[in-house]
Amino acid sequence: MAIYSEHSISIYNSLSSKKELFKPINEGAIGMYVCGPTVYSNVHLGNLRTFMSFDMIFRYFKHLGYKIRYVRNITDAGHLENDADEGEDRIAKKARLEQIEPMEVVQKYTVDFHNILNTFNFLPPSIEPTATGHIIDQIEIIKGILEKGLAYEVNGSVYFDVLKYNESNDYGVLSGRNIEDLIHNTRTLEGQTDKKNPQDFALWKKAEPNHIMRWPSPWGLGFPGWHLECTAMSTKYLGEKFDIHGGGMDLKFPHHECEIAQAKAWHNCSPVNYWMHANMLTLNGQKMAKSTGNNILPDEILSGNTKQLSKGFSPSVARFFMMQAHYRSILDFSNDALVASEKGFLKLMDALKTLKNLEASTAPSDFNVSKWKQGCYAAMNDDFNTPILIAELFNAVKYINQIKDGTNSIDSESLITIRETMQAFVFDILGLQEVSAVGSHDEKLSETIALLISLRNQARTQKNFALSDQIRDQLVEIGIHLKDGKDGTTFSLD
Amino acid sequence: MAIYSEHSISIYNSLSSKKELFKPINEGAIGMYVCGPTVYSNVHLGNLRTFMSFDMIFRYFKHLGYKIRYVRNITDAGHLENDADEGEDRIAKKARLEQIEPMEVVQKYTVDFHNILNTFNFLPPSIEPTATGHIIDQIEIIKGILEKGLAYEVNGSVYFDVLKYNESNDYGVLSGRNIEDLIHNTRTLEGQTDKKNPQDFALWKKAEPNHIMRWPSPWGLGFPGWHLECTAMSTKYLGEKFDIHGGGMDLKFPHHECEIAQAKAWHNCSPVNYWMHANMLTLNGQKMAKSTGNNILPDEILSGNTKQLSKGFSPSVARFFMMQAHYRSILDFSNDALVASEKGFLKLMDALKTLKNLEASTAPSDFNVSKWKQGCYAAMNDDFNTPILIAELFNAVKYINQIKDGTNSIDSESLITIRETMQAFVFDILGLQEVSAVGSHDEKLSETIALLISLRNQARTQKNFALSDQIRDQLVEIGIHLKDGKDGTTFSLD
Repeated sequence: MAIYSEHSISIYNSLSSKKELFKPINEGAIGMYVCGPTVYSNVHLGNLRTFMSFDMIFRYFKHLGYKIRYVRNITDAGHLENDADEGEDRIAKKARLEQIEPMEVVQKYTVDFHNILNTFNFLPPSIEPTATGHIIDQIEIIKGILEKGLAYEVNGSVYFDVLKYNESNDYGVLSGRNIEDLIHNTRTLEGQTDKKNPQDFALWKKAEPNHIMRWPSPWGLGFPGWHLECTAMSTKYLGEKFDIHGGGMDLKFPHHECEIAQAKAWHNCSPVNYWMHANMLTLNGQKMAKSTGNNILPDEILSGNTKQLSKGFSPSVARFFMMQAHYRSILDFSNDALVASEKGFLKLMDALKTLKNLEASTAPSDFNVSKWKQGCYAAMNDDFNTPILIAELFNAVKYINQIKDGTNSIDSESLITIRETMQAFVFDILGLQEVSAVGSHDEKLSETIALLISLRNQARTQKNFALSDQIRDQLVEIGIHLKDGKDGTTFSLD
Repeated sequence: MAIYSEHSISIYNSLSSKKELFKPINEGAIGMYVCGPTVYSNVHLGNLRTFMSFDMIFRYFKHLGYKIRYVRNITDAGHLENDADEGEDRIAKKARLEQIEPMEVVQKYTVDFHNILNTFNFLPPSIEPTATGHIIDQIEIIKGILEKGLAYEVNGSVYFDVLKYNESNDYGVLSGRNIEDLIHNTRTLEGQTDKKNPQDFALWKKAEPNHIMRWPSPWGLGFPGWHLECTAMSTKYLGEKFDIHGGGMDLKFPHHECEIAQAKAWHNCSPVNYWMHANMLTLNGQKMAKSTGNNILPDEILSGNTKQLSKGFSPSVARFFMMQAHYRSILDFSNDALVASEKGFLKLMDALKTLKNLEASTAPSDFNVSKWKQGCYAAMNDDFNTPILIAELFNAVKYINQIKDGTNSIDSESLITIRETMQAFVFDILGLQEVSAVGSHDEKLSETIALLISLRNQARTQKNFALSDQIRDQLVEIGIHLKDGKDGTTFSLD
């Protein structure tokens, strides 16, 4: 059901550096492009957070009934190692190291990327185009920019002429960088002598003899510059001007700045209405980096097989943890933070189980469900503020537990509303999953152990210590450990 | 460990219509190309069988230690509706029906295809290239064939000149069709007037105004002919001549025949040493067809949500069923056949569990494990004869059960061999999965219930019927039902 007309969403637009009322170009329809992974290594946790933020945004738009086309690309053509456009193509380099074909590297890490995203309960985007699948489109754009006189060819490469573009446009409009500063601060590196000016960037690079990913073009054998693929794929599937372009904060400059310049040079039209950037993730207060060991892979969260974590966590706990921060805030990842999130997540899941069995009554209540529901939407409508949303969900958790304890009550209409609203926000929008969607067997195991504990207590009451010890000892053999405490007996599994 | 040098494999080559000794072009390395799905609808069961056959072959080559590059493409550019090269592009047609972008259709069914293959425990191929990702390569091949004078351009389309090619080559070499018969039996359909001769096929088709998937080319806006993409992608990643090309039987003509013609016209070299074709799958003795309702989707096997099946089956049962037929035999799918396969599969899995706990002894044995192991390899080396392999595995099952019952025995070396060999053939090569790979919790549950049964028996021996009844009744509340029989107490779960 389309309910988008009832909701005004404000989005922080990086282009204006302020929150703006969101108004799509075509009513009821949204085009959204997000820069996807470079598939030359395993996806890292920072990227995962960025993609998860846009997955949540995609889910919310869908929930509101928008017809949304969400395009997230796969960078499989590799991109240059540094922003100066020099250096070896990343994918080709890895391929030579492993002595395999670049597209084998691409396949390996694309499969890995999809597996990780499936595990963390991502929705697939509407289209997932590849850079190598759009070489012709990129060549056509380069021809167009050359015709406008805003690029030049040198020795089989084509560069974007930033200074010339800036004469009638504003290079730096997104990143806020000043062209004069850029000129003064850009060092001329060796091998850059082809460029008129160091801040120019490559649209097409001549392939050196050892460069294995290469295509024929009007300028000879070569490959497209990295910035170009996103211009080609976003405009091909979403139009010359579309609603939302997202990505990690680190892509604002030069990547997104260059996308704007390319699109304006080509079509004389600013391509994107709302630029959205997800913030970075730190680990134990430090920047994540493989080299220092201050690093963790998505897989390691699940297995707990890393010195950074005391144990493994379910994908939904990790997802809940990430959703507890706003997408534009820096998020610090740590074992303690995850442990705390797990506690909160389980409390939420317990309340949802309780909610299933609650009964309505006509007794008075001091909780306004309809106002609470408005609060949930208000949080999301305010630039997708998931931490505020989660705080609202916990207001409901408190209320649900009060009803269970008999200290509060709920009427039948409110009960339907709270159930539907919790379902929508917890599962459809935040993308969390029930603790054990897999196994009703897990529940049976808990109940069977509870039965054994009660038999053991019964034996102890009857002073039949042989039997009570037997139960405890045989459970140990199975890998189930009982622990007696002041609140009764609990158990842990091997 | 590479053990391929110890094994001579014979492969039925469709090109010679006989079994031939397999000799790869480069020792120890194999290039294999298999025609993948057209992602304009859900993958059907017949396709699944073809892909599963080649997954098994891929797994066997890997097991033998070959370095194998397995390329299976995704046909996302659509191909023409009929063999006569006319009609609407399949993907574009579906897109217009659903009023979405063709690449959205591609994404939907690619995601579905990957999900199905994951469910059925397929290994990903080494490279999974897309047709749209290789338009430039296809254009280059057309240029090459035009230069050789074996194709001609008419009104923005390019056709392969079959008669001219046949003057110095043998069109029909794979399918055994005679060019004279083809000429006499091909009707000239309306709209084919561009072609010199009706048996010519399109390399490039001019895009009609309403055709939305189109690319610029030296012959104007258009799209490549279907046969061409496989020539482009196979030779790009495997070389001008490679070892194995596979696909469904229905692709032999015209698709594979045209691939040979294109490659020979282009490079003057027959592209493939071994052509392999998997046979079709029928349902209840009839050809599967959506229109008649004699149809079943892979998903429906799992859910049992179809009138064709009495219940759902696990992916491994379906896989086991398919592996019980040789890939070159027609396989008839039916509820009864699946029920029988499930029985066999569970018997195999039970034996594997028993095998884990067997103990070696020095008593005499009448089963020669080393000879049996040779038999397993011999079955696979004989054109991947999985039904014979499975018969061998059941010889081992019988032996394992004899050892358990104390009517046979096994020495320690043989025990290691049989464990390793069963592991390799059942899981690595046939790709089956244990009944419950998910839950070690399941095992704990069984053991916990076993403990409760023994406590109950103990109580009964002590004539404490209050306790024994209490255990039985409380288990029922949890959904666990005990059943006393002459071989002891068993249980079932709700």
